[in-house]
Amino acid sequence: MAAIPKTANGPADEAADDLTLLAERHLVQPWPVSGSIGAEARGRLDAGEGIYVTDASGRRLIDGPAGMWCVNAGHRNRELAEVMASQAMELSYNSPWYTTNAPSVILSARLAEHAPDGVDHVFYTTGGSSAVETALRFMQFANNVKGRPEKKLIVSRQGGYHGSTYLSASLNGRPRDHDWMDSASDLVVKLSCPDPFRRPDGMSVEAFCDFLVEEFRQVIEEKGADRIGAFIAEPVMASGGVIVPPPGYLRRMQDLCRRNDILFIADEVVTAFGRLGHVFASKEVFGIEPDMITFAKGVTSGYFPLGGVMIAGRLFEELRRSNHSEAMFAHGLTYSSHPVGCAVALKNLDILEGGLLAHARAVSDHFQQSLKALEELPLVGEVRGLGLMACVECVADRASKNPLTLDLEVGKRIDRHCQELGLLVRPLIHMCVMSPPLTISLEQIDDMVSILRRGIELTMDDLTREGLWKG
Amino acid sequence: MAAIPKTANGPADEAADDLTLLAERHLVQPWPVSGSIGAEARGRLDAGEGIYVTDASGRRLIDGPAGMWCVNAGHRNRELAEVMASQAMELSYNSPWYTTNAPSVILSARLAEHAPDGVDHVFYTTGGSSAVETALRFMQFANNVKGRPEKKLIVSRQGGYHGSTYLSASLNGRPRDHDWMDSASDLVVKLSCPDPFRRPDGMSVEAFCDFLVEEFRQVIEEKGADRIGAFIAEPVMASGGVIVPPPGYLRRMQDLCRRNDILFIADEVVTAFGRLGHVFASKEVFGIEPDMITFAKGVTSGYFPLGGVMIAGRLFEELRRSNHSEAMFAHGLTYSSHPVGCAVALKNLDILEGGLLAHARAVSDHFQQSLKALEELPLVGEVRGLGLMACVECVADRASKNPLTLDLEVGKRIDRHCQELGLLVRPLIHMCVMSPPLTISLEQIDDMVSILRRGIELTMDDLTREGLWKG
Repeated sequence: MAAIPKTANGPADEAADDLTLLAERHLVQPWPVSGSIGAEARGRLDAGEGIYVTDASGRRLIDGPAGMWCVNAGHRNRELAEVMASQAMELSYNSPWYTTNAPSVILSARLAEHAPDGVDHVFYTTGGSSAVETALRFMQFANNVKGRPEKKLIVSRQGGYHGSTYLSASLNGRPRDHDWMDSASDLVVKLSCPDPFRRPDGMSVEAFCDFLVEEFRQVIEEKGADRIGAFIAEPVMASGGVIVPPPGYLRRMQDLCRRNDILFIADEVVTAFGRLGHVFASKEVFGIEPDMITFAKGVTSGYFPLGGVMIAGRLFEELRRSNHSEAMFAHGLTYSSHPVGCAVALKNLDILEGGLLAHARAVSDHFQQSLKALEELPLVGEVRGLGLMACVECVADRASKNPLTLDLEVGKRIDRHCQELGLLVRPLIHMCVMSPPLTISLEQIDDMVSILRRGIELTMDDLTREGLWKG
Repeated sequence: MAAIPKTANGPADEAADDLTLLAERHLVQPWPVSGSIGAEARGRLDAGEGIYVTDASGRRLIDGPAGMWCVNAGHRNRELAEVMASQAMELSYNSPWYTTNAPSVILSARLAEHAPDGVDHVFYTTGGSSAVETALRFMQFANNVKGRPEKKLIVSRQGGYHGSTYLSASLNGRPRDHDWMDSASDLVVKLSCPDPFRRPDGMSVEAFCDFLVEEFRQVIEEKGADRIGAFIAEPVMASGGVIVPPPGYLRRMQDLCRRNDILFIADEVVTAFGRLGHVFASKEVFGIEPDMITFAKGVTSGYFPLGGVMIAGRLFEELRRSNHSEAMFAHGLTYSSHPVGCAVALKNLDILEGGLLAHARAVSDHFQQSLKALEELPLVGEVRGLGLMACVECVADRASKNPLTLDLEVGKRIDRHCQELGLLVRPLIHMCVMSPPLTISLEQIDDMVSILRRGIELTMDDLTREGLWKG
């Protein structure tokens, strides 16, 4: 067996081989395939600074996806690093079952100021999956207390992504998430993906929106409003490929929820904390006022695992007025309301309010326009996005809009070229997702887009040379 | 609305009232009841040091439960605080989907050295619930790939506690966890609680153990081994009241699992990382070699939300040899393998290996014996425990072993007196759980036990005076 370094900070060159061996023998990471599970090592990152990360070979790369949609304030932020240590030297932990702490209380009040009116309570978790679990288990609990235990179905959408626990994963609408996994499929109904790019041929975007809303109306009619507890939606589908829904779609879906007493859960794990230029995007960007808003990722810029749900206070009022004052919402995590996580989030919110939100709004147009120009390339079917999130979708040809098949791994091919040139891309089958740290400058956006363009061009050359694509 | 302090560090006296108001208006914490949900404030802690915490009034208290079984290295540990900042200034985050980092690789190798032979791979999560979800979803996935999708039932036990997500909570065996909550009950079979104190009258502990093992054998016979995927057990039931099973019980349950190809999952979220004197307790304390071991809490002494599952390498080998090399284990969290969390865990492991494990083993006997002496008090039915975890169970009288009813809230009554005297207790209905930081000295154990004794005595006085108890 390889010798085990006692600490993490040995010289990179000497330790590199050992660490690769050790990873293959001992570490399992997300989304492995059976053929290599328990025996693979992924490329190692050793350092970060601003929008850049440095890999094990010392190569500096623009962090195109900001980690996993989360490093919003950028890498190596001294304020965020130091607040972890200073809060840990005050109070590093308290049990939220019996006690509370000042950072979690203050953060709750500040988040409530940013959320839509009345969405003024927070339940903290350790990330997006547990935030979604909290929202859904609260819906189930509330309907049990209110004497309507049949009103529990959850409506989600094809293409959506909501987490990686048994229940939250059941909502996911990407086929690969389900092929070999079990899920609570009897608790969930899925609607169509609101992807204008893949709407039926010849249908206008307006008609497509009508179709989507009518589909929901029919589901309510068929299943019965008294059996549907919640509708959950990412305002912009993130891991489904940055799907921006048709104008008015979210407001109309919300109207249907209101009329049928169905809770609207906006899953803002990706869109909150500056990705779309605001702390929460629901009201400011889309004009909706959900009953619950789940968040995670950007709330601490990824420095600390924290997530949570904003919940409308009226939902608690209803329970306090019920006949079952003893009914216990038996839910919560050891790390709910973690004092260090909440202190990091407070500092992160200072940074966002102190200029980073405004900066994100200021550079978004340049970001979107620069990427949009990649539609000139024949491999690119569409570039779409909002704020500082975007997706470059590759197709075999524009007429058919056929995605290039999985076997070609076009996203991974582009990523490989881009990494050689100094850019980490998030490859998503035939798509490349771009969501850099919000600190990115106009000049750095130009660098990022020009590397991405070159990576796509080189991929087109490869595919043509290999006879896999006709251009 | 109360003014919102911008940071967490205002002077306690001025801010106290505001923070209480803000908590009532904005913060929801674990296990609230309908009567006060969304409108309660719990007592605030402001600081910690070693085994002590300081509350909002400036009162110093021994942290009897070490937070929530987790502050194993004690509060205000400068090494743990500083490693968070230093790792965040190196690499604060990387996406585990596409990349890896040195601290997570090194931690995996070091944990594998402590786990039973062959239990040598790690999948990281953000806590115990997600660790249990990972273990169970992996069992489901593996059985799908191996072409036996019917082998999925999970066997757990009355009194057990495994988490607070829809699936992990379904395993819980405490009635209050289910009264108003939904669960995946069709996926779970529950066995009897292996509590020797509450074994049938006149039955020996040995005969009770035979009964428990025979019960499991019968369940396997009735349901069919080809329908049962896993058995999950805390080696010592923690939140169920520190239930130490009969001698030999765990080994015999493991034998049944082996003979029927049922995975044995040891849920060591509480018992690992020194609580019983070892990094993992399964083999060292109980002589068992589980197929998977879930952990969390003590792995970072609660400073950072980290959990995970140790998984036997042979389970991955089986999958690599299967005919479905493309099958994807579509599971993982944004914060899986978090570099800062793994760096904290490495430092915490240094502290444990560097003397804290030995200290915990050295003071355990005194801890258990001192608490055991509280059985002199007529309110106390039994004091039991192992290592540095113990439970004082109160009963109306020893003959009937009837617990004092919920309405009396005996645990909370004792906790209230103890807090006045300088000790935080974890009240659990009619029980008091004690699991202090492992750094506790012999003298501090004496302080703790003498305050607890006085708290119980005062509670006996109250109950007698109120005519609620006959003594």
